[in-house]
Amino acid sequence: MSAAVPEPSEGLFITFEGGDGVGKTTQAGLLEEWLKDAGRTVVRTREPGGTEVGVLIRDIVLHHRGEVSPRAEALLYAADRAHHIETLVRPALARGDVVIQDRYLDSSVAYQGAGRVLGRDEVRDLSLWAVEGLLPDLTVLLDLDPAAARARLDADDKPFDRLEAEKEHFHARVREEFLALAAAEPERFLVLDASRPAAELAAAVRERVAALVP
Amino acid sequence: MSAAVPEPSEGLFITFEGGDGVGKTTQAGLLEEWLKDAGRTVVRTREPGGTEVGVLIRDIVLHHRGEVSPRAEALLYAADRAHHIETLVRPALARGDVVIQDRYLDSSVAYQGAGRVLGRDEVRDLSLWAVEGLLPDLTVLLDLDPAAARARLDADDKPFDRLEAEKEHFHARVREEFLALAAAEPERFLVLDASRPAAELAAAVRERVAALVP
Repeated sequence: MSAAVPEPSEGLFITFEGGDGVGKTTQAGLLEEWLKDAGRTVVRTREPGGTEVGVLIRDIVLHHRGEVSPRAEALLYAADRAHHIETLVRPALARGDVVIQDRYLDSSVAYQGAGRVLGRDEVRDLSLWAVEGLLPDLTVLLDLDPAAARARLDADDKPFDRLEAEKEHFHARVREEFLALAAAEPERFLVLDASRPAAELAAAVRERVAALVP
Repeated sequence: MSAAVPEPSEGLFITFEGGDGVGKTTQAGLLEEWLKDAGRTVVRTREPGGTEVGVLIRDIVLHHRGEVSPRAEALLYAADRAHHIETLVRPALARGDVVIQDRYLDSSVAYQGAGRVLGRDEVRDLSLWAVEGLLPDLTVLLDLDPAAARARLDADDKPFDRLEAEKEHFHARVREEFLALAAAEPERFLVLDASRPAAELAAAVRERVAALVP
């Protein structure tokens, strides 16, 4: 499937969402390649940890041996986000670049709001305060059964971090939350069945990205 | 001046506020000594950095070489606070201990809300969300002209951290903010002229603490 690359005159903010092991990195990489081949300047980034300060914050959240309280965890993610958006994403968008980002506020809402003790709305409000309301032009949700995603991670023999090690039913709840978020904002979200071949998924992403700019 | 020590049956949460160099540590130490001599269990703590996780957060805020964005800074302080209150302060109060804390949410409001780009109310709301509304039983504000406070720090030959190195007029605005906060909550605040002798200040603090519990 062919698709026209958006004009380089305006910035685009594209996020990839979904549980661990659904293929976000692969799809982000394929989209980056396509856009770069077409002459767009692409900034690939991630949350948590997309800046130097963010890496320090990420270390605290993901790898601190002690327990981080739920509110503290939500606030740390929001701090990483605030810094990342202000120092990296907004300047890139202002230059007219395409920002392709692995995880954004939908991850916080899905993981914290659904799986933890905090409410969906308060976590979303916190993130929106952190970023002064910046929402992506497009959010690609790669949807996959948690058991299938776990099998992929096992096959890669990747070590699990703290979140990955949590129980299966938690991941099922996260998946439901992601789908609910997508249903609430159909114009922003593209939901794809992540069990499909990577090349097919990439084509679907390209088509949607091409449609973003006339 | 003599004063009766509060009964050990209930917890007390006492914070010390004011700019750098006003004598918070000295006064917190004198109060701790008095309470311990009377048989109370005292937990001395501080923000930022009162827990292991908090120390990591504090390092990011105070000593990271790059710029931390204002919203990120406010969120990091709130994260430290959330973790600190949930894991250290609330358990101590539940045991009936006295918690004496160097800086709390009034510092965030005074420094961030007044001196920075963020609004006083949003910073306060953020902190209150972080701690589920916990306010101190008593907040001692040590009020001092910033030039006098700076002279004390110079005499101690202490290295300035990033905040301390900011300009004089910033500290003057912080002082005004602290005084405004105290005026808005006269029942919670005890405002003392920090240029008075330490022993006099300590006596005034003891008198107020003694009055907190019949």
